[in-house]
Parts: sequence; C-alpha cells; structure tokens
Amino acid sequence: MREDEDVTFVSGRTRMFAIVGHPIEQVRSPEMFTAEFVRRNANALLIPMHIRPEDFDTSMRQALRFQNFDGFVFTIPFKQAALKFADTLGDQARVVGAINALARRDGQWIGDIFDGLGCVEGFRRRGYSMRDQRLMLIGAGGAGSAIGVAAAYEHPRSVRVFDPDTARASELAEKIRSVDAGIEATVGAPLTSGIDILLNASPVGMLGDTRVPVDISGISPEIIVFDAIVKPEMTGLLTMAQQRGCRIVMGREMMRGQMARMIDFFGYARV
Amino acid sequence: MREDEDVTFVSGRTRMFAIVGHPIEQVRSPEMFTAEFVRRNANALLIPMHIRPEDFDTSMRQALRFQNFDGFVFTIPFKQAALKFADTLGDQARVVGAINALARRDGQWIGDIFDGLGCVEGFRRRGYSMRDQRLMLIGAGGAGSAIGVAAAYEHPRSVRVFDPDTARASELAEKIRSVDAGIEATVGAPLTSGIDILLNASPVGMLGDTRVPVDISGISPEIIVFDAIVKPEMTGLLTMAQQRGCRIVMGREMMRGQMARMIDFFGYARV
Repeated sequence: MREDEDVTFVSGRTRMFAIVGHPIEQVRSPEMFTAEFVRRNANALLIPMHIRPEDFDTSMRQALRFQNFDGFVFTIPFKQAALKFADTLGDQARVVGAINALARRDGQWIGDIFDGLGCVEGFRRRGYSMRDQRLMLIGAGGAGSAIGVAAAYEHPRSVRVFDPDTARASELAEKIRSVDAGIEATVGAPLTSGIDILLNASPVGMLGDTRVPVDISGISPEIIVFDAIVKPEMTGLLTMAQQRGCRIVMGREMMRGQMARMIDFFGYARV
Repeated sequence: MREDEDVTFVSGRTRMFAIVGHPIEQVRSPEMFTAEFVRRNANALLIPMHIRPEDFDTSMRQALRFQNFDGFVFTIPFKQAALKFADTLGDQARVVGAINALARRDGQWIGDIFDGLGCVEGFRRRGYSMRDQRLMLIGAGGAGSAIGVAAAYEHPRSVRVFDPDTARASELAEKIRSVDAGIEATVGAPLTSGIDILLNASPVGMLGDTRVPVDISGISPEIIVFDAIVKPEMTGLLTMAQQRGCRIVMGREMMRGQMARMIDFFGYARV
C-alpha cells in the first residue's frame, strides 16, 4: 500500500469533527459520519473523543481552540453541559435547552440539537406519521426533550411524558405545549394501552443492560414502538415489540436521519 | 457502502493519536502512520491537531486528558515546548532536551525524540554509513539537535554545526561530544567541501520557500546530501545535489524510519 492512497481519509488538510462522550466505545457516529463525508466528497473525518465528566468544561474549552476542528457532536452525559459553549442557538435547541452539535461558522460556534429531528425523520422514512397520534414518551433527558419538542412540531393529539425525575418530565410537557398549545401534554407513569406510539428515550436497555424501560408483554400490535438506543440495535423493548407484531423504528434510523441533518449543519452539501 | 465496513479505520473503539503543530496542512504523518497502523492490524488512527503557539500549554494539558488518546507526535514549533509534559524521558530525549513523541504507558507520559534515529535509519536503508565521516549539519533546532545526537552515536569523525543562533549551535556541539568525546565537534558557517555528508535540518526550503540553506552549485558528487524537509519531497537543495550527481537521502526516508520506531514506542508490535 502506498501511503498516498490514503490521503482521501486522513491527511494534514483533513477537517476534523469529534463526538464527545463518556463512555465512548459504544458510539456509532465515527464510522457513520465518516462514510457520509466520503459520500459527499468531503475531506473530513469524525473521531471519538472520550472526555471525563469532571474534565468536560475545561477540556472542551480547549478543544474548541483546535484550529482544524470545525464541529463537535455531544452524547451522554454532555448534551446539557455543552449548551454553554454555543455563541448562538438554533430553533430546536432554544426550546429544548440543550444541544448535541456545535458548528464553527464565521468564527462563532452555533449550537443545535438533532436527536428529535432524527426521530421524526426515521418515522417519515418508514411512512409513519405522528399527526393526531397519542404518544407515550419515556425519558425527558437530553434525547427525550429533543424528541418531545421535535414531535410537538408534528402536531400529535397527546404526549404523555414519564421520567423518574418528575420535575424534568413536567418541564418537557411545558415545552411541548409551548410549541403547540393544542397538544394534550401530561406527565405520568408509562402506559402501554390507550396510546398509538411508544417512544423510549431513556438509557434503559443500553449496552449490557437487559432490562426494558416498561413491560410491553401485553401491548397491542397496532402500537408503533421506537427505541432511541443505538447499541444494541435490537434492544429488549424492540424485540418484545416485534414478537407482539408491532411495527418498530430503531435508534439507528433516528441516527441516520440526524446524521444527514448534522452534516448539512456542518456545511457539506448533499450530493 | 455499508457503514459497518469502515469500522476498521474509525469507530468508538479506535485508539487515537495526534500530530500537533502550527501550521498543520503540510504534515504527512496522518496518512503514513494510519497506513502503518493498518499494516500492523491496530485499530488506531493518527489525526492532525492544529494548536496555535499561544494556546499550546493550556490546550495540550487538556488533550493529554482525552481518555482515548494514547500518544502525540510534535512538529514545528512545539518540540521543545512539549518536553514539560513528559513524566519520564527516553535516552535520546535526555541528551537532546526536546521530544517529538509522547506515549501513554501505565498512567504516565513517556517522551522521546525520533527525528535523529529516523535520519540514521534512512542512511542505513540506503547502505550509507556515518562512521568516520565528516558531517556538516545545518540547523540546531529541534530536528537538528536530534539528528546531531543520533549521528553522534554512529561515531562520525567530525560534525560541524551551523545555526544562525550561535549559542544553540555550540550547545549542540557540546551534546555531540557528550555522546562521544572522540568526535571533533565544531561550530561555523556551512561548508560544501572538506566534508562527506551535508545534512539540512533547517526549515529553509519548506513549502513555498524556494531558497536553499546553502549554495551547493559547486559541490563534489562524492558528498551525500540529506534534507529533513518532507514537503516538498524534492527541495531545491536535493534537486541541486542530484544535478551535481550526489547521492541523496530524502526527508521522507527519515520520516518512514522514525515512524516505524514511533509506532513501536506507541506499543504496537511489527508484523
């Protein structure tokens, strides 16, 4: 192999992007973004950057000064902590109060959040609409808030939010109503009936965690079940849903949707 | 392209290495190291990291805290400034007083310098020996010092050092004698006769700079000419040397030699 052949994927001129998280091993963004950069003929690369929570503020401030780094993606547990580094916020981020991406533009850092838009995009690509539907959303953290807010723009009939932190759940319900006052936004324990769409945005079921966020052994096959978790691709929740005959939307589909939107945001046109 | 196919070159589990410099566009390490990591079946990647001189100390301190970064390579102008971040120094670095690589080992950062070893290795691969030869070395900065010290271990007859900063040249001559007191180490203007090997370790001739560090239009074809500059591969100096019929050793050959030694140092065995 001649080293010159590899210039297309990393050289001194490659523009750098990073996903920042703790832990980092489970992230899928490096391979997915990089493949998409290649498809768009961009000399750009997204790498994993493992920063410990206690180092985040100090380390991130320096990472923003690396001159060849043009963007950052934030994953657990940094979506809220990253907000302070944005000089300007996009529409979704302003309502959600968190970001999962920063893009360098004209010497400023613009922050926005794409998880929710990715979820909505995943539903659209499957041909499933959220309009007038009754949603049950589990988890009101960074991803949950983004999904709730993006879903609100789709005008569902109702959204019931569950989070062990009730105050956090109530805040999200308030944000949902702020987007569309016609949505019946409530807070309460997970329901598996009287709903049309079940959305998991909690970390229950991630990596080695074999639990499910709610028991759906008796769920109706009419209900669409979504799980924001990317690894494993088939969580316990999605497996149970499939066994019951439900239609499912996977975390990976959300991620592909948000990835496309983020790379637009990073300034590389679709080809 | 399925994104899974790209896991071999970057995923959440990829161990990260970076070359830190200012400017950064000219570096060849990202593609060369990454190709060599692939050859050694390592899930590792070396990226460019452009840090401004005024940010170096503060930014570098944080970069060392990125948990998935296991090593750094330093280029102009950071080889001396990087020294302070090494908890322990290797043999070459101790004499030279500068490093160009840091490796994480048992929670410590070990620093060493490989430019000089790479130059010696480049001569060896061509079958050229420095033993008992008369060397003219131009440049006594980071690269020049490393080359002078590594050359001293090859036991040349003499080394004449030139640097616009005479004090720096004298310090290097002293270091050369400290390795082998039998070497006639002197300081003075560049010579192009009465020598066997001419080594350029100054930045003159780099990138758009069309100057040569010394006029060799009358040089004897018996003299071997080396240039540490990597970009362009054929500097004005090397082009003139070739026109005179001299044997040459290119910066790229030094870089390949030192790259192999650095990847050993980073803990990946040769295959």
